[in-house]
Amino acid sequence: MRPSSRQPNQLRSIRITRNYTKHAEGSVLIECGDTKVICTASVDEKVPPHKKGSGEGWVTAEYGMLPRSTGSRMPREAAKGKQSGRTQEIQRLIGRSLRAVVDLGKLGERTIQLDCDVIQADGGTRTASITGAFVALHDAVTGLIQKGLVAENPLKDFVAAISVGIYEGTPVLDLDYDEDSACDTDMNVVMLGSGHFVEVQGTAEGHPFSREEMDTLLELAKNGISQLVEMQRTALARD
Amino acid sequence: MRPSSRQPNQLRSIRITRNYTKHAEGSVLIECGDTKVICTASVDEKVPPHKKGSGEGWVTAEYGMLPRSTGSRMPREAAKGKQSGRTQEIQRLIGRSLRAVVDLGKLGERTIQLDCDVIQADGGTRTASITGAFVALHDAVTGLIQKGLVAENPLKDFVAAISVGIYEGTPVLDLDYDEDSACDTDMNVVMLGSGHFVEVQGTAEGHPFSREEMDTLLELAKNGISQLVEMQRTALARD
Amino acid sequence: MRPSSRQPNQLRSIRITRNYTKHAEGSVLIECGDTKVICTASVDEKVPPHKKGSGEGWVTAEYGMLPRSTGSRMPREAAKGKQSGRTQEIQRLIGRSLRAVVDLGKLGERTIQLDCDVIQADGGTRTASITGAFVALHDAVTGLIQKGLVAENPLKDFVAAISVGIYEGTPVLDLDYDEDSACDTDMNVVMLGSGHFVEVQGTAEGHPFSREEMDTLLELAKNGISQLVEMQRTALARD
Amino acid sequence: MRPSSRQPNQLRSIRITRNYTKHAEGSVLIECGDTKVICTASVDEKVPPHKKGSGEGWVTAEYGMLPRSTGSRMPREAAKGKQSGRTQEIQRLIGRSLRAVVDLGKLGERTIQLDCDVIQADGGTRTASITGAFVALHDAVTGLIQKGLVAENPLKDFVAAISVGIYEGTPVLDLDYDEDSACDTDMNVVMLGSGHFVEVQGTAEGHPFSREEMDTLLELAKNGISQLVEMQRTALARD
Amino acid sequence: MRPSSRQPNQLRSIRITRNYTKHAEGSVLIECGDTKVICTASVDEKVPPHKKGSGEGWVTAEYGMLPRSTGSRMPREAAKGKQSGRTQEIQRLIGRSLRAVVDLGKLGERTIQLDCDVIQADGGTRTASITGAFVALHDAVTGLIQKGLVAENPLKDFVAAISVGIYEGTPVLDLDYDEDSACDTDMNVVMLGSGHFVEVQGTAEGHPFSREEMDTLLELAKNGISQLVEMQRTALARD
Amino acid sequence: MRPSSRQPNQLRSIRITRNYTKHAEGSVLIECGDTKVICTASVDEKVPPHKKGSGEGWVTAEYGMLPRSTGSRMPREAAKGKQSGRTQEIQRLIGRSLRAVVDLGKLGERTIQLDCDVIQADGGTRTASITGAFVALHDAVTGLIQKGLVAENPLKDFVAAISVGIYEGTPVLDLDYDEDSACDTDMNVVMLGSGHFVEVQGTAEGHPFSREEMDTLLELAKNGISQLVEMQRTALARD
Repeated sequence: MRPSSRQPNQLRSIRITRNYTKHAEGSVLIECGDTKVICTASVDEKVPPHKKGSGEGWVTAEYGMLPRSTGSRMPREAAKGKQSGRTQEIQRLIGRSLRAVVDLGKLGERTIQLDCDVIQADGGTRTASITGAFVALHDAVTGLIQKGLVAENPLKDFVAAISVGIYEGTPVLDLDYDEDSACDTDMNVVMLGSGHFVEVQGTAEGHPFSREEMDTLLELAKNGISQLVEMQRTALARD
Repeated sequence: MRPSSRQPNQLRSIRITRNYTKHAEGSVLIECGDTKVICTASVDEKVPPHKKGSGEGWVTAEYGMLPRSTGSRMPREAAKGKQSGRTQEIQRLIGRSLRAVVDLGKLGERTIQLDCDVIQADGGTRTASITGAFVALHDAVTGLIQKGLVAENPLKDFVAAISVGIYEGTPVLDLDYDEDSACDTDMNVVMLGSGHFVEVQGTAEGHPFSREEMDTLLELAKNGISQLVEMQRTALARD
Repeated sequence: MRPSSRQPNQLRSIRITRNYTKHAEGSVLIECGDTKVICTASVDEKVPPHKKGSGEGWVTAEYGMLPRSTGSRMPREAAKGKQSGRTQEIQRLIGRSLRAVVDLGKLGERTIQLDCDVIQADGGTRTASITGAFVALHDAVTGLIQKGLVAENPLKDFVAAISVGIYEGTPVLDLDYDEDSACDTDMNVVMLGSGHFVEVQGTAEGHPFSREEMDTLLELAKNGISQLVEMQRTALARD
Repeated sequence: MRPSSRQPNQLRSIRITRNYTKHAEGSVLIECGDTKVICTASVDEKVPPHKKGSGEGWVTAEYGMLPRSTGSRMPREAAKGKQSGRTQEIQRLIGRSLRAVVDLGKLGERTIQLDCDVIQADGGTRTASITGAFVALHDAVTGLIQKGLVAENPLKDFVAAISVGIYEGTPVLDLDYDEDSACDTDMNVVMLGSGHFVEVQGTAEGHPFSREEMDTLLELAKNGISQLVEMQRTALARD
Repeated sequence: MRPSSRQPNQLRSIRITRNYTKHAEGSVLIECGDTKVICTASVDEKVPPHKKGSGEGWVTAEYGMLPRSTGSRMPREAAKGKQSGRTQEIQRLIGRSLRAVVDLGKLGERTIQLDCDVIQADGGTRTASITGAFVALHDAVTGLIQKGLVAENPLKDFVAAISVGIYEGTPVLDLDYDEDSACDTDMNVVMLGSGHFVEVQGTAEGHPFSREEMDTLLELAKNGISQLVEMQRTALARD
Repeated sequence: MRPSSRQPNQLRSIRITRNYTKHAEGSVLIECGDTKVICTASVDEKVPPHKKGSGEGWVTAEYGMLPRSTGSRMPREAAKGKQSGRTQEIQRLIGRSLRAVVDLGKLGERTIQLDCDVIQADGGTRTASITGAFVALHDAVTGLIQKGLVAENPLKDFVAAISVGIYEGTPVLDLDYDEDSACDTDMNVVMLGSGHFVEVQGTAEGHPFSREEMDTLLELAKNGISQLVEMQRTALARD
């Protein structure tokens, strides 16, 4: 029995709100149960040094949590003067995941910067960030096309992410904080609309997992991500 | 004529939403026109070194802006590794303003940390932060009293803040971003419910102001803050 | 009765020594009672990025205290690896105050950097810095004119600063350290030779002030600053 | 055909040298082809704050590369003043992997710090670090047991790691630098002697992988790690 | 012929002013020609961790230059967020030099912190710092003895320092900036009143020096330091 | 009697291994008894700003210690976020020492960066670094000549370094860690093949040294360095 009474293969209730803030080229509030992340996409007509003169663009991400997005207040990273290893790991993951669906040549020499800021955390902030950031990225890209700055759609597919894990012996989909802290095996999966994997990050500090468990978890993730991609499509179809 | 068509002495439309996020002891979303700030109050049963053993508590604040809360994206302070001078100035101002209404002895040896995070900026973020943070602080203090941790109400009064300035020759209340960037004189005023001043910060990089202009501006601010205090009372009266 | 036996409206004894060190384009030692600040003006034939190609110059300031300028030794900011919020607040104030009297177009694309270093502190270091820095700036500007680098005098007026506060119930001018630490209301005022205000920063962490108190304090400040401007004129008239 | 002419399922030549340096409680040079990493284990009779008073110990890791361990010189992280996101990600991975085989209760309240320093890099430095660090950890733990500081062996199993990837369409084991830079799918696998997974980190920035590809890669990794564990056993059996 | 027309073995004119600022336990302005350094000694009734419980005290030093103490303005180290290698090298040298004359056991478990801040630089700032800091240290120690906090004089001897170098082929004493920048061999010598050496730091980036040149330089330094020690004695004999 | 049973004028056993790692233009492992340092030379076809357009090259050095190169583990400087004063002092010394033998004009506008990384420390790491780095530099320069990038040999002489000190009253050559920690006078000497001095850094925190002692120490150092230069020649003569 899951703390939230969900079925093992049941996602939390998901809500995707586009145009959440007014300045960004793409701005999305994604809510996965009590996890809430603001994902914005900002277009910058410059590229980092390693892309200069290449004719290609860049997509990158930053991640942050409001200090009291969590049960007990975390020190503000800006005040501490550095981002934690966890933060850097997550923002590198988001950046790689989004780049997997972008044809950087078609994007042209410009950068799309994704900012994922957690305003309330209840587990799964990194996967929610990826799922929400894709929608913000899509809006930003659509804007570039509408303005005639980009000729051909650089988005090759949809991308979304979910966590899976083994909670009290049962493989479950979309861990919330209560499950996440009680569960020793945790896997974050990033998948395309096509069903191909972009990232699989399984971690088992407590309970190493067998090949069979891994297979079950990957199956759960696949089904969850299919649903998320559907929700992204629906959100993007709205005006 | 103001860009927003407001009267010179007219506030923007203000909305105060309590219990905006679920973890904090006080959590408020304050919206002043298009300026939106999440203000949370976190109770910590410790005090900083200069208060240890004093029997007194402490109230302090931190301030941040989401990178794309603004028209063009600002670098993330956590990634840059330091808070700007502006950020530090603002969070010191918020902290002093809130401490002005707290009897630290009655609070007891604990800290209330206020976090003011701007999710959308359109001018006046520091004054909105103070006005919203007071409500979050009030909720946190009420919680301490209800739990029996604090015996006597440490809040001595209400406190709120507003900006005033001279826009195209006319003294106006509650500057939005368009006015703020076009106006050379800018004053932030923090006032108690009693009408006494806590902070007056007038800055005139472009157009030094006369004593008469200052008097007009202070009058405008006083009226604006009276209305804000009324809205705080209303918000706190709701369940 | 003030600790220094001064009258409520009496400045400390002020001394302004020009050409205090030999390398800088302007170098002033200002002594306000026991507060001693070295103010230097350095001309740099470059401007910061936001002024490049604008035809306009820039004026900026930095502030520091020798570690043992104070009663108990403060950690050296260079060793700690960052400037405190207080330091940044003060140097931003000094920069804004000086820019208020400079026509940046007439200055041309060059920067004048003001360094205010406190070698002995006894209250009022930020206001002494502004008053002294103006004289150093004046000397640097005169040098530029004499060398034919600047055609027309970019200085529009004089600028000076003083603190006022309410000490044991009495509004007083030019607080020294003993008064400053005992007094809950403290206001720093920056004013032009013309009598217009550039900055008014009143802070009342302990004792919020009424409109009437504010009026009295502003009047005290105005009279004090008139005297300071006179002393600046006298100092600059000396060879 | 692999650049090194190896078979798809062939490891590079591996050498594990124990007691490589004289001061550390465990000190191993691991060579995987041209990749060379010094792994040391240092025992510290203290634990980090989150373990104080818990009766449990801690195992953690740090990772670094000599600036010219690589083809072109990388800036020294100590001189830049911070560790890159990649470095932090790797050292967190090493720490988690090693903790998976340690019973922290049996270790007692002490820390074993693993330092993995790459002196020559040719791909696979993070997996070589894990494989080598386990041997250093084993030596340090044996020392603690021999000194009577630890009563019961806290090591629950062996742990080793390897990379796998798809190089020019063929799934291959143990990527060297030439393969790694040419290959879009890259997976690092950490496994116990028992064959259970501790970490699976598959990344496909360029070429998303199918479920079938993933299965093949996991199989390759499993066989590779079995061989590595055998080599660890052999190395530890030597005097 | 030296730029200053001094004889090869002639010191610049030296002035030592005690009680230069009012807060410090020892405060000295030392002027060596146009080089001016404020040296303060601060007593702290604590010791660093490596001396805790040892019964011994500690003496340490910090060094800084005002940004415009030099011909062209140097960036402020506090603003850059770190001390340069040169600064750290110099403050470590000052600390070691002063500790050479202090019996740390007699000092008792307290720290004397020396701050050497250059307000005008014309070569030889590190040696002037040592010579001046000794006088400040002496005053601080005398104060401790007079207050009865220290029973027996912990100062074992006098210590002073000077630079020597080969300028246009001639060995000269006490290099000023013009000589220093034109001269390839430069030696800083720290010596006791007894004539024993504490530090000899000879550097010849341009013109390596022979054993004979070294002998001549050491002789020059010895004579110069004897004179400096005499001036320290005279200064300390004044009331 | 020395702890190592060496004669007072006897070096430790020295081994110089060229081509120790494969990527660098020069790569040397130098072993002086139990002190082991990897010295690499990296050629970069750029120069720092102060050499741009000068037609001259630059030679610079960085130094580091693996955390467990020492008896008890030292914190990793990259993790602490800054290099210690000691590290900076040493790398500045190495850089100056090597530049003393390079004709920067003949090198042309390129930088040779020397990295000295201590993998095992037993005293004398800075002098071993200089002696080893010279050999790496020599190999890098030979490579540049062989590729036709440099026309004329920019190396003017050999350079090597050694420590000397007074151990239990006896002047001894090449201090190991046991001697170094027990000995109050310590001198590092850097000398050319010609016998001229490049650096002499004598430090006597505990026991100030007389002129006669200094003479004896310099003589010991001279003889030691002659032997080291001979070993460098032998190593470079090998293929």
